[in-house]
Amino acid sequence: MYYPLDGQSALDYVRKSSLMTQIYGEKDDLKAVDLAEGNINLIFRVYSESDPIAKSVLIKQALPHSRRYPQIKIPLDRARIEYEALQLEGRYCPEQVPRVYRYDPEMHLNVMEDMNRHIVMRYGLMKQVQYPFFAPHIGTFLARTLFCTSDFYLSSFDKKAMVPRFINPVLCKVTEDLVFTEPYIDHPNNRWTRLLDPQVTEIRRNEELRSEVLLLKLDFMCNAQALIHGDLHTGSIMVDGEETKVIDPEFAYFGPMGFDIGAVLGNLALSYASQEHHAKDPRLRAEYREWLLDTIRQVWTIFEREFRRLWEAEGNDQWPSVCLRDRYLKRLLQDTAGFGACKMMRRILGLAHVPDLDSIDDEHSRAVAESLALNIAQSWLMDRNRFASVEDLIIAISASEPRYPFG
Amino acid sequence: MYYPLDGQSALDYVRKSSLMTQIYGEKDDLKAVDLAEGNINLIFRVYSESDPIAKSVLIKQALPHSRRYPQIKIPLDRARIEYEALQLEGRYCPEQVPRVYRYDPEMHLNVMEDMNRHIVMRYGLMKQVQYPFFAPHIGTFLARTLFCTSDFYLSSFDKKAMVPRFINPVLCKVTEDLVFTEPYIDHPNNRWTRLLDPQVTEIRRNEELRSEVLLLKLDFMCNAQALIHGDLHTGSIMVDGEETKVIDPEFAYFGPMGFDIGAVLGNLALSYASQEHHAKDPRLRAEYREWLLDTIRQVWTIFEREFRRLWEAEGNDQWPSVCLRDRYLKRLLQDTAGFGACKMMRRILGLAHVPDLDSIDDEHSRAVAESLALNIAQSWLMDRNRFASVEDLIIAISASEPRYPFG
Repeated sequence: MYYPLDGQSALDYVRKSSLMTQIYGEKDDLKAVDLAEGNINLIFRVYSESDPIAKSVLIKQALPHSRRYPQIKIPLDRARIEYEALQLEGRYCPEQVPRVYRYDPEMHLNVMEDMNRHIVMRYGLMKQVQYPFFAPHIGTFLARTLFCTSDFYLSSFDKKAMVPRFINPVLCKVTEDLVFTEPYIDHPNNRWTRLLDPQVTEIRRNEELRSEVLLLKLDFMCNAQALIHGDLHTGSIMVDGEETKVIDPEFAYFGPMGFDIGAVLGNLALSYASQEHHAKDPRLRAEYREWLLDTIRQVWTIFEREFRRLWEAEGNDQWPSVCLRDRYLKRLLQDTAGFGACKMMRRILGLAHVPDLDSIDDEHSRAVAESLALNIAQSWLMDRNRFASVEDLIIAISASEPRYPFG
Repeated sequence: MYYPLDGQSALDYVRKSSLMTQIYGEKDDLKAVDLAEGNINLIFRVYSESDPIAKSVLIKQALPHSRRYPQIKIPLDRARIEYEALQLEGRYCPEQVPRVYRYDPEMHLNVMEDMNRHIVMRYGLMKQVQYPFFAPHIGTFLARTLFCTSDFYLSSFDKKAMVPRFINPVLCKVTEDLVFTEPYIDHPNNRWTRLLDPQVTEIRRNEELRSEVLLLKLDFMCNAQALIHGDLHTGSIMVDGEETKVIDPEFAYFGPMGFDIGAVLGNLALSYASQEHHAKDPRLRAEYREWLLDTIRQVWTIFEREFRRLWEAEGNDQWPSVCLRDRYLKRLLQDTAGFGACKMMRRILGLAHVPDLDSIDDEHSRAVAESLALNIAQSWLMDRNRFASVEDLIIAISASEPRYPFG
């Protein structure tokens, strides 16, 4: 029987489970905290007072609707999709995903490793923290999870058996609407910094840009290249000095690889733009931006190297062509730029913004940073068919200027 | 209980069914004939001696393996896929599909309209018959069936509910292997006119061409644009002077639209090449080839006009961009050329050939026609990214020459 947990019933749930021997001791005094973070689920931390760091788990339970936006109904089955996606990601890249201690199909919940020593990467970026292991970890994660769920690795039969288990209509629709549709039309969900009105109007009126976004939307809806995470921004990545963990794959479905890679690179570019405000000292700003650009370079480079290695070492025999590999990766880079651009623009024009920019209280500073981000995105989107290497994405960033204040 | 029919049990099956009142009279004297045509199924004609034309049905029953190639196992469920595909096609384009009188899920069979006044179009083309209604019928069929099962018409939810019902792993694998893989490698399935050895070797060694074919294979495997017929050559089309019927959609699945349109245009181009032999009189040959080229032009033009009309009149509100429509249709034309080319080449290099070319007994004549077809295909495949209108496909045909005899 499904019932939504509260602090007390979360405790009771854990006490009656095998977690008492798996994680805790029978005599441990447990506490539950409602973390009330995240947009769409219930999340409780249950820990032992005897060792709140090591003896702690997270319970993530699906509600029949979004927690933050209750008018949005979301199927409980997303807990299963998250569980199955974590299992698959864990098979190919165990170090970059949280362990799942238990999936409860009746309660639509997962009990998971509590990464209480980690922070959400986005907040580290806002404080100019450099994560030297981030690029190798996430580049490898992307290469392994995408390659190993693609036709380059799976047999034609195995992939076709997996696809229907990850058909994810409601959460895909959220992305279709919030990323690809609403930011470009008049819609009550949208909000933006009003100082940017002239630039926003121009984007909305740009028919070429609109058709590029819609072509990417079609790709998002049709092109089942691999099992993608589907929501891989820097808020879905937890880091500490050494580890990188990718969480929250409940948007997972078979879609275009570039959507995941673009989410990572696009959110690094958003951070780049937001340093206009966060890194006040010009020398520090320049230095941190250099690190962000190098991280974009490294994420792609390590992704590409590992993807090629896997193709060579573990690919099936259906793709016997080096030339294909080169063309595929070039096209993937262009898709990455396009999807990355869409992920950036929706954070400035649409419903859900990011703290990197939204936390900038001063409207003028925010307008400068957001104007810069929009220009980077526009260049990624409209010039991407000429991009041949990750350096082209980087040049597009460093060559971009904010249009605000408008002359 | 499933059992494969023979002539006697086919008769018994019909006599016990409501077909006796639906099609025949209770006292009609019925005969059954095993048509033994088609590569993969049992097909019986059951007719009444009182009126063998009007009172006649076809029973098409799935076997657990291919009839012609018993080593190929094929799931019985294809009868359901064919039934559901015929229902959908019939909803959007009733005049271009046979009526289904009964689908029997236990016996894995469909009882269908017997088009005994029609002939398989391919054989008409071999005799230089002109079908003035073919282009409007098939152009409209393509536009309606593809548009109405795409994201331009269906809601995001409705499409995602339909996709799993048409996941068709075994028949898709047949196409993946026979169209996109085997013709380009050493494989015991392949056969070709030995006089063409030098041209065949050159194609197999052409790494650029190989990677283009594999990119199209990826598109075939990943890109779920619409419910496609999946096997729409001129042997799946029945015609008489006035009617055009598309049969045999058991390969149906959600795939790229260009695969269906390319199948039609590619088979018209194969007929064009085969007229080298079939139309001996030069004036007649030129005239019939002109008709074939004009039919290619008309099929695309009517398809495009109807597709645009549907988009305007019946499309959902997710694609508010005229610019998108133009770009989408240009890309679809290029996909059409690419898939059409693959469909042509596999008929000359791979397992299953077409009577248009295979019936040419004289090896030299056959080599000339096939060499021409290969050159047309190569131009469609390799030049398609420069194609902007159907005239470019037509110019590629009329500018092509056979390479055989090799100078």
